[in-house]
Amino acid sequence: MDKLKLTSQLKRLIIDVNGIKIGENLIVIAGPCSVENEKQIVETAIAVKQAGAHLLRGGAFKPRTSPYSFQGLGLNGLKLLETAKKETGLPIVTEVVDTRDVDTVCKYADVLQIGSRNMENYSLLKEVGRIKKTVILKRGKQATLFEWLNSAEYILAEGNPQVILCERGIRTFETYTRNTLDLSIVPAVKESTHLPIIVDPSHGVGKLSLIPPMCLAAVAAGADGLMIEVHCDPSSAVSDKDQQLTPKMFRNLMDRIRRLQTVFLNG
Amino acid sequence: MDKLKLTSQLKRLIIDVNGIKIGENLIVIAGPCSVENEKQIVETAIAVKQAGAHLLRGGAFKPRTSPYSFQGLGLNGLKLLETAKKETGLPIVTEVVDTRDVDTVCKYADVLQIGSRNMENYSLLKEVGRIKKTVILKRGKQATLFEWLNSAEYILAEGNPQVILCERGIRTFETYTRNTLDLSIVPAVKESTHLPIIVDPSHGVGKLSLIPPMCLAAVAAGADGLMIEVHCDPSSAVSDKDQQLTPKMFRNLMDRIRRLQTVFLNG
Amino acid sequence: MDKLKLTSQLKRLIIDVNGIKIGENLIVIAGPCSVENEKQIVETAIAVKQAGAHLLRGGAFKPRTSPYSFQGLGLNGLKLLETAKKETGLPIVTEVVDTRDVDTVCKYADVLQIGSRNMENYSLLKEVGRIKKTVILKRGKQATLFEWLNSAEYILAEGNPQVILCERGIRTFETYTRNTLDLSIVPAVKESTHLPIIVDPSHGVGKLSLIPPMCLAAVAAGADGLMIEVHCDPSSAVSDKDQQLTPKMFRNLMDRIRRLQTVFLNG
Amino acid sequence: MDKLKLTSQLKRLIIDVNGIKIGENLIVIAGPCSVENEKQIVETAIAVKQAGAHLLRGGAFKPRTSPYSFQGLGLNGLKLLETAKKETGLPIVTEVVDTRDVDTVCKYADVLQIGSRNMENYSLLKEVGRIKKTVILKRGKQATLFEWLNSAEYILAEGNPQVILCERGIRTFETYTRNTLDLSIVPAVKESTHLPIIVDPSHGVGKLSLIPPMCLAAVAAGADGLMIEVHCDPSSAVSDKDQQLTPKMFRNLMDRIRRLQTVFLNG
Repeated sequence: MDKLKLTSQLKRLIIDVNGIKIGENLIVIAGPCSVENEKQIVETAIAVKQAGAHLLRGGAFKPRTSPYSFQGLGLNGLKLLETAKKETGLPIVTEVVDTRDVDTVCKYADVLQIGSRNMENYSLLKEVGRIKKTVILKRGKQATLFEWLNSAEYILAEGNPQVILCERGIRTFETYTRNTLDLSIVPAVKESTHLPIIVDPSHGVGKLSLIPPMCLAAVAAGADGLMIEVHCDPSSAVSDKDQQLTPKMFRNLMDRIRRLQTVFLNG
Repeated sequence: MDKLKLTSQLKRLIIDVNGIKIGENLIVIAGPCSVENEKQIVETAIAVKQAGAHLLRGGAFKPRTSPYSFQGLGLNGLKLLETAKKETGLPIVTEVVDTRDVDTVCKYADVLQIGSRNMENYSLLKEVGRIKKTVILKRGKQATLFEWLNSAEYILAEGNPQVILCERGIRTFETYTRNTLDLSIVPAVKESTHLPIIVDPSHGVGKLSLIPPMCLAAVAAGADGLMIEVHCDPSSAVSDKDQQLTPKMFRNLMDRIRRLQTVFLNG
Repeated sequence: MDKLKLTSQLKRLIIDVNGIKIGENLIVIAGPCSVENEKQIVETAIAVKQAGAHLLRGGAFKPRTSPYSFQGLGLNGLKLLETAKKETGLPIVTEVVDTRDVDTVCKYADVLQIGSRNMENYSLLKEVGRIKKTVILKRGKQATLFEWLNSAEYILAEGNPQVILCERGIRTFETYTRNTLDLSIVPAVKESTHLPIIVDPSHGVGKLSLIPPMCLAAVAAGADGLMIEVHCDPSSAVSDKDQQLTPKMFRNLMDRIRRLQTVFLNG
Repeated sequence: MDKLKLTSQLKRLIIDVNGIKIGENLIVIAGPCSVENEKQIVETAIAVKQAGAHLLRGGAFKPRTSPYSFQGLGLNGLKLLETAKKETGLPIVTEVVDTRDVDTVCKYADVLQIGSRNMENYSLLKEVGRIKKTVILKRGKQATLFEWLNSAEYILAEGNPQVILCERGIRTFETYTRNTLDLSIVPAVKESTHLPIIVDPSHGVGKLSLIPPMCLAAVAAGADGLMIEVHCDPSSAVSDKDQQLTPKMFRNLMDRIRRLQTVFLNG
């Protein structure tokens, strides 16, 4: 197997997204699974901003197991994210799933996300390797650390050094949770690469009650950030109903995260 | 989860590729992992044709874990496949990995292959759903039957009914083999969908000595075809050195397969 | 890791159980999941004998996930197996789950079975290593070949060379089948150890319709034998209702197996 | 599948081991993988006691993959644990692997451990269900929560209510770590059963550098305790060399754990 070259540099990477320093302080990315309509995305954006989130997430292109499931609003979804950004100032994180959409998504997003299903879509990785925007690369559902870093290597090799890794749970035999969030990957990433690592407990566990403790555990494990699904009205959501926090739950969680951070900041 | 619609029809599908009826009699697709040069692909094509193969496989676009591994000859590889087809008359099977390459690959290939890494690359599935060529859809390394059929559903939903499923091994904890070839999926597919199913033991086990017995087992399990890696000189291969049969091994194997078939044809 | 010593001898092992040569010709072990009562076990034994089975299987000690599920008839079950043996002459295969039961089980059984849950119960392995009876060692649900052979090594190291390996399916993400039957382990075992290997498709797939094709595939892959669950009245079975063949299905299957064998015997 | 009965009671269980309340405050169990000799176990016991550990762990009966690996000192190991207890007052936790050893182990141990390999050894579970001592039940390497609770149910059903669950990592495809520590099981256990849950990051990750962050993460996730391998001289250890902390590392870790606890105690 060919060796890793660009993903294991000595100096830890700090990425600046509109003034937010990722890799320096804990950052929180929050927002709904899918962008559904203007009211939904703007209300949610305002709520997560007030609670202390640093970036807004929202899916416009949704990779779904069935072709008959909601596939996202596409370009309209991107435009609604732009509106939410204007209202709140929050930078936008959104997924891209097709090489031909990369340019368009770049016009609206501050950070492009490669989802777990596309971690081995090398054409797409090369394409986002040629842009000037930060890329969040989610770990594939069964990817090893080595395979994941190789996927990051594809992006770096094309000239884009701004890559953030995101753990989102791997597939195991446990059925109680949607996936198994692998928090030991956080210190493993820290000692293997200079790239920042964030954790997405929402997809990792897929169960509302388990998200807050896993957020705290991710912070304690040393994560550089969290990605959390929040929806202004989860019961009406078109996707991922069971794992989106209400704004109130999110505020409480942010309070607990801040309290936990004091231990690490002071130590 | 949304239901399957188009992948479970009553009448078993027979696909005609240049007069070869897939889903009717056992068909064998053989050829090298990667197209390397004219001599290699033409020699191998002649050898597999003489041994009784029905279609020629060869990779021009290679999805590799590392960006520094051989990525295939691309367009030149397609042209070399065309040469081999002219020499032997064997229809061509080759992989496509990027939505933007689908038209080009269609010009040279008789059957397009979607590799296991792209089983959940829905943009690519939709794109090959809009063409008039047969598509071989490999099972993802950790895909369930339901997820796999949903991926086929993406292709059928766009208007292309000509889909062949291909089992190529799933990831398990066993390290003796490269993957674990799941032959029980063959009768499972037969009772779940009208689409033909073929088996690729080369990637399934990744070990020369195990390929012949697994080919026989696949036929006994009811597979509609086999996809086997054959190289005129495996020791010089640029990829998959350890799992490509020599022409001589392949001829012996084809003899054994034919003998085995007589049992099923007579019964 | 310490090396294997006794499990990789050059000369292939032939085990003689009451005149039946295991490792020489294909043998079939058949019978119900659990011994339930005299009528059930005797009727089933007669039926499988008539169809051509070589040994009778039946569980007296049942390892079950829940303590509230049927745990087997214990000693009474062993006595009923003895009755069935008297009626048919078929040697008995039954599971032992406790070191303290080994002597008792030896009085009634011709072959002792170690189930997949106990593949790493080293105390039990050592105990059956001290007896003079043949032991069938089932593969653990997630065991690698190396771990499995090490468990066999525990038995051989205590002085009992008469070990038969039995593949019974490993756990994977596929939910259509109960487990995933790993047939590539058959040739892998053949090239790694001198011990015979048999295959249990009943537990491997857990679905009636898939058992016959997987029996044929196991034979084609080179298995030394099959272990098949047969019940004189499956719908009334206290365990494994969905994977026990009726005597009629079993007879049909035996016919197909015999026809398949002719290919291999003549070749 | 039969239902769980005794493992899901409303009132959270507090277990008293020699005055230590497990399930109330965070407890730490520390000590070497194997008991090797008097000097080793006594020195280690004194060191972990001084650093704040509440119980001493040490293996006398060691379940090992190979029969040629060190199998533990057996009865002599138990006696050395008794000596260490006399020197430090720390209650003893040690593993039992054979039904016939349960009485003997009870004479020396305060808490009996059932290892992951024996989670489905139902004879052993029933046997420890008949004693008056606390039992730590480790999760099997591929067990689901439901299977694990069923194993606990075996112990409770025999009359022993004093069961502590212990997460120790599950098998996944990741090879960087020895296993994948599943911390989401901590809140999942908390909402499914009244039994306490502790976490063993040493076996969970098998890599020295990852143990401290995973201990902190386990506490943040809500674990009732930690089980940590500590050896007075890890480089000379007969087993698990790469995952045993030195006394100094353990003291530093205990300081960090205490600081982290203040957040949760005050919140």
